Amino acid sequence: MRARPSLLYAQSGGMTAVINASAAGVLHAAQQHDIRVLAAVNGVLGMLEEELLDVSRVSKRHIELLRQTPGGAFGSSRFPLGTPESKPAHYRRLIDVMAAHEVRWLLHNGGGGSAGTSLHIANAARAARYPLSVIHIPKTVDNDMALTDFSPGFGSVAKFTAVSVREAAQDLAAMARTSTKVFVMEVMGRHSGWIAASAALAQSRDCPAPQIILFPEVKFDRTRFLQQVEAVVQRDGYCVVVVAEGALLEEGKTAMNSDSEHGRDLWHVQAGHAAPQVATLIKNELGLPCHFSISDYLQRSARHLASSVDSEAAWRVGTEAVALTLRGEDRVMAALKRKTAPTQSKARWTVEPVALTRVAGKEKNLPRHFIQRDGFSVSSSGLRWLQALITGEDYPEFSGGLPLHAPALGKPLARKLPLYNSGS
Amino acid sequence: MRARPSLLYAQSGGMTAVINASAAGVLHAAQQHDIRVLAAVNGVLGMLEEELLDVSRVSKRHIELLRQTPGGAFGSSRFPLGTPESKPAHYRRLIDVMAAHEVRWLLHNGGGGSAGTSLHIANAARAARYPLSVIHIPKTVDNDMALTDFSPGFGSVAKFTAVSVREAAQDLAAMARTSTKVFVMEVMGRHSGWIAASAALAQSRDCPAPQIILFPEVKFDRTRFLQQVEAVVQRDGYCVVVVAEGALLEEGKTAMNSDSEHGRDLWHVQAGHAAPQVATLIKNELGLPCHFSISDYLQRSARHLASSVDSEAAWRVGTEAVALTLRGEDRVMAALKRKTAPTQSKARWTVEPVALTRVAGKEKNLPRHFIQRDGFSVSSSGLRWLQALITGEDYPEFSGGLPLHAPALGKPLARKLPLYNSGS
Repeated sequence: MRARPSLLYAQSGGMTAVINASAAGVLHAAQQHDIRVLAAVNGVLGMLEEELLDVSRVSKRHIELLRQTPGGAFGSSRFPLGTPESKPAHYRRLIDVMAAHEVRWLLHNGGGGSAGTSLHIANAARAARYPLSVIHIPKTVDNDMALTDFSPGFGSVAKFTAVSVREAAQDLAAMARTSTKVFVMEVMGRHSGWIAASAALAQSRDCPAPQIILFPEVKFDRTRFLQQVEAVVQRDGYCVVVVAEGALLEEGKTAMNSDSEHGRDLWHVQAGHAAPQVATLIKNELGLPCHFSISDYLQRSARHLASSVDSEAAWRVGTEAVALTLRGEDRVMAALKRKTAPTQSKARWTVEPVALTRVAGKEKNLPRHFIQRDGFSVSSSGLRWLQALITGEDYPEFSGGLPLHAPALGKPLARKLPLYNSGS
Repeated sequence: MRARPSLLYAQSGGMTAVINASAAGVLHAAQQHDIRVLAAVNGVLGMLEEELLDVSRVSKRHIELLRQTPGGAFGSSRFPLGTPESKPAHYRRLIDVMAAHEVRWLLHNGGGGSAGTSLHIANAARAARYPLSVIHIPKTVDNDMALTDFSPGFGSVAKFTAVSVREAAQDLAAMARTSTKVFVMEVMGRHSGWIAASAALAQSRDCPAPQIILFPEVKFDRTRFLQQVEAVVQRDGYCVVVVAEGALLEEGKTAMNSDSEHGRDLWHVQAGHAAPQVATLIKNELGLPCHFSISDYLQRSARHLASSVDSEAAWRVGTEAVALTLRGEDRVMAALKRKTAPTQSKARWTVEPVALTRVAGKEKNLPRHFIQRDGFSVSSSGLRWLQALITGEDYPEFSGGLPLHAPALGKPLARKLPLYNSGS
């Protein structure tokens, strides 16, 4: 029996609190249009290994649960697929697998690097005259993707960061007179300070924290930093420092928790972290009692604190990606376009196609005018832009005190091809 | 003009997400009974330094906001007050300050160590024939206070821990095939594994994590631990390890983030942490890619994820402490007593007075039968007991994407006594 033309959905790269909301959007929209949907297990690796699920018949209730589940329901991939030129066998295999299962549309959900992979797959299919449309669905906590107003996933990590700083600052303020005076919070961001910048949203009339932010974009000046910490403790009684994981790294070194290391990292586990380095410096040089946190995965999986704007955006890039396939679009990303002025804290967005050739391999850094001249804080234009993304709470359902997550979804497809050695 | 007989409220020790709910309960109940309430700024230190606030006229709205604000609204203290024998001048001063402001009731909100201070103050007042009733209000994230079913503050950190593990496990599961295979989460607990144990609540049919918990109560066996990690990764594809900060510490050493260090800690900042030690071990010995988190203050200030049972308990020990003063109680703690069987996950509690002499200096460890024989997990009786405490969500109000916190409350009282040099 010949299968119906199918849409294949695959997740890629590091996870976010809301990437499954995009998956849920895809499943929902595909059901609306009666399109057969498959999901790749562990992204491109499942495509190579022909490990696919039929997720066409997932119930409405399960789509609802999927929407509120962090992590990647079908498994993600950091598999080094290479290019059609460097690894032609991989790309031939991908096309064989898609052909075997009548895949006509590929929806690839990932960050900037994965957008490059989307383009490679599209190019390989075109070269092989295989009829395939490729739509890239953006996601990444780092917010460094080009040509989308923001990357779904970032709004929620921004909210987690700002809320955590505001809460921890209350704790620190109460302890500062006789105990800890400085709290250092490490956030993700090897090359870009988007997440670190979002911490500044915690500031209010009643909350001066975070008083110091260390961005990867600003060269770390140890002396000036220590002077600033001392001045802030003098003025406020306590100081919250937010440090991006890459803010203190010298060229070419990688942090411990960096996903890209894979054992290649020669640094000692602890030395690779920014927060303990900063805390040691403060303790040794200023003699101030100091606590630090490294929330790592907690910050990007905190679905319980997702921003409504962010989870809604994630859902919509999913549903719109399906709509784009129906409109015959190919080699595009379903990008968010802000329809309101960047200075308005209440914003609206549309989803529009942007050519993948313009997205792949590009990075969007934190604009210089979002950082204040002192290099330690965020400008008012930066604050207004960021504010829009943390608006609204989208609490998951809880049962027995814990959030409800989706169970394993989909029906494994029988293999039609011989096994393939991906080398993984 | 002579002031009315007054009730003095003071916070002590490390903060929790809900200690201010106890403060709010005290203010609410005192208003109901038209009692003048003062708050000490920075706990006993404010009492020594005559830094007091009149909080009798705080509005209903502000009490509501106080109830949802983490940290300690009036400042806490880790000031080493000593005993009436070792520091008689301090205790004379405390009584002078209370006498100057007509304080007849002291409500001291703190953990086990602070309960000792409550008793010392009561003893000193009795010896000086100063008419004072002392009621201790329990709080601590560590849950190590004797003779209260649980310590308010613990339920919320338990919920934060269980939710975070369940969320991070989803992330890890999606990454494990081609990237990180082990996630190590460090939680508070130098001597007792209550918080670490609460992580086990994350386990469900769909979530095997956390597969390994390291308790301070169980001697760390490196070989057996590594074998277990390897077996779990083999079986589940990934492994979440939850480690109490004190689980790997040798006798007499202190962790970096420990509040009790105050620069006395000779350990290097990073070496004092359990999570990077465990992660290094796994990476070096098993070669498995590993991430870790140290949430530190975030776990105890996460008011946005407070358990309803916990915040309600915190409020009630506050209101009941006021009721106990009206009933003429003295030298007691307002303790929680569970009225339902410990095996019932839906529980009810009453608040009852327990003599401070029975509480002070005692510690309640995690019962041995809460830990499974393998030493890495929690027994079913432990799970049922813990389950009751994380029930219900008590979300704070949000505005602009962030939780609303109480502003500075109360009116500073004019000093009536000469300055005192506390030596702080």
